[in-house]
Amino acid sequence: MKLFVALTIAATALAQNAAPPAPVRSPEVGADRTVTFRLRAPNAREVLVSIEGQTQRVALAKDEKGVWSGTSAALEPDLYGYSFLADGVALIDPGNPAMKPNLLNTQSVVHVPGNGLVWEVADVPHGTLHRHPYKSAVVGDQREYFVYTPAGYDPAARKTYPVLYLLHGFSDDASGWSAVGKAHVILDNLIAQGKAEPMLVVMPLGYGAPEIVRAGFGGFRDPGLRQRNFDRFREALLTEVLPAVEKSYRVNKDREQRAIAGLSMGGAETLYTGLNNIDKFAYVAAFSAGGNTEDYAAAYPNLTAKQANAGLKMLWIGCGTEDRLMESNRKFRQWLKSKEINVTEVETPGGHTWLVWRRYLAEIAPALFKKKVS
Amino acid sequence: MKLFVALTIAATALAQNAAPPAPVRSPEVGADRTVTFRLRAPNAREVLVSIEGQTQRVALAKDEKGVWSGTSAALEPDLYGYSFLADGVALIDPGNPAMKPNLLNTQSVVHVPGNGLVWEVADVPHGTLHRHPYKSAVVGDQREYFVYTPAGYDPAARKTYPVLYLLHGFSDDASGWSAVGKAHVILDNLIAQGKAEPMLVVMPLGYGAPEIVRAGFGGFRDPGLRQRNFDRFREALLTEVLPAVEKSYRVNKDREQRAIAGLSMGGAETLYTGLNNIDKFAYVAAFSAGGNTEDYAAAYPNLTAKQANAGLKMLWIGCGTEDRLMESNRKFRQWLKSKEINVTEVETPGGHTWLVWRRYLAEIAPALFKKKVS
Repeated sequence: MKLFVALTIAATALAQNAAPPAPVRSPEVGADRTVTFRLRAPNAREVLVSIEGQTQRVALAKDEKGVWSGTSAALEPDLYGYSFLADGVALIDPGNPAMKPNLLNTQSVVHVPGNGLVWEVADVPHGTLHRHPYKSAVVGDQREYFVYTPAGYDPAARKTYPVLYLLHGFSDDASGWSAVGKAHVILDNLIAQGKAEPMLVVMPLGYGAPEIVRAGFGGFRDPGLRQRNFDRFREALLTEVLPAVEKSYRVNKDREQRAIAGLSMGGAETLYTGLNNIDKFAYVAAFSAGGNTEDYAAAYPNLTAKQANAGLKMLWIGCGTEDRLMESNRKFRQWLKSKEINVTEVETPGGHTWLVWRRYLAEIAPALFKKKVS
Repeated sequence: MKLFVALTIAATALAQNAAPPAPVRSPEVGADRTVTFRLRAPNAREVLVSIEGQTQRVALAKDEKGVWSGTSAALEPDLYGYSFLADGVALIDPGNPAMKPNLLNTQSVVHVPGNGLVWEVADVPHGTLHRHPYKSAVVGDQREYFVYTPAGYDPAARKTYPVLYLLHGFSDDASGWSAVGKAHVILDNLIAQGKAEPMLVVMPLGYGAPEIVRAGFGGFRDPGLRQRNFDRFREALLTEVLPAVEKSYRVNKDREQRAIAGLSMGGAETLYTGLNNIDKFAYVAAFSAGGNTEDYAAAYPNLTAKQANAGLKMLWIGCGTEDRLMESNRKFRQWLKSKEINVTEVETPGGHTWLVWRRYLAEIAPALFKKKVS
């Protein structure tokens, strides 16, 4: 009995602080792919759940114990960010350890399992994710970039690898493409299936002017700040991150072995960096790009059809049809076409969500670094 | 004007879902080292803040807009986990991107800046943190371990490094010692200051029986589950993680170049693994150890003073005096001393918190792998 008491005390003490344990089970994914959400909030008047990519919010109802619960429609297998909206305040699910890092809008994550979706961890050889803290002289801060190396990568071997530079969106941090986008899992699976070439993926912090994110979602309304953010990001990428990666990893430095892609703000950075540096990147892919100027002639002063069509093995511009950035993507593609620049135009169902971006990465990765021009 | 409207729409669309932006500023650290917390919760009846290591909760008061706010006492410079307690429900601060990963009890984090605390990122050469997903045959799941390599580590060079195996506590995941414990920052700083030898730090997932954490804080009450958790953890560490690390990194395989340390459950795993494998580890350090059996003769059947005192360069057992595990740590030390085994006994102010464990890591790391016996 004394032993039992001691163990009970020990188990209680193992809780690393005084907060009570999560009192309700949430989220609960049903065999029918519905998701039941629960939140104890005895005095709230309204609790909804907002799910990434779903226009319909789930309305929860309160029981006599003060626990709100409700069940979504059946969802397609995927990873979904979600938040409770308790009397209008977005809250992380306290019962769910799966959290989505974000500098402005953290959320919880629920996994509705599929049967071998490309972003689901599978029993295949895994690569490694390397987190590099460094001081940026260009931006003047301590920041970091992540590098994915594929399974079998050997730093002591002679083989060199192509590199995809993969950029996150506004409000993400440098962990966005791995923690939320599952880029390392997607590449593990595509490489194991023989669909993608073994490659490195470099995921840097995407802010040239970090104050733009501290300014919140209004930061992009300041054109000077916006431009500084793009310019210094490009400078940090090309003069700090890229040389550091090429120094410490086994990298093929041929421009035809270098790609750049990104989502949202990172899509705009991809276009701005890639199309102004065709000497460095042969593959350019923008996912739901947004936030850059629409004065294209000023943004791309030297871009010509001759240079782009000869130099680029890929110019891929995709956007979801429910994304409010769709029109500006169409407008930019129209400008490219008016200059007779070849562009792959992709419009798919979906909004401004990671559900779209994981699919876009899985779509472009197999076309990168192939021996033949795709 | 049209451009401004387009940019405003774009900025709004850059928000990656429909949740409203965080409406209040929280936490706010004052020049006097007080912290003001704010939470919009218009219908809550009571909102408190529970701060790691502080016995006193901060009571918040509601204003006419439904925003609760309150200010802590002046806090010593440190990193603190905290939760709102809204009508008894522990909530992450929706306005704070700094979150503490945990499988049972996620929290927010606030940094009260010091002047060069060893766990604060400084302008020194940084090492790299490598995340290795792998399939464990011993446990039968997909899991991961993290490896810290110090600044200047060169996988192609001949130099080899000593290794510290560093174990997290119950309810943490494999990221605990880096995301919360800042082990990589602590080592960066100690190495840059010449206080610690350059070393690798390996941080594996600490569950031999992952169902113990799915069972919640009561998991330790089942002695069979508890023992399976310890035994399979040790087996996975010694037969999977350690050989993989020694294969892919430049590691000195001498037992005098190998240390094991851990906190709470990981402290118990440290003692169980280290003291039963003195042939493999010359340094053993337990921080606030808890959760193992108190039938020491059964847990350490072959441990003798002769073997321990000759083989161990460090047997360090520390615990905070406000920790409920203090008594069981004293009891275990007493048993060691009754067997005439040399042990460094450390009791410091503090509870069962990361504030204690970061200090313990910073205390033991300089004593590891020195040429002379400390």
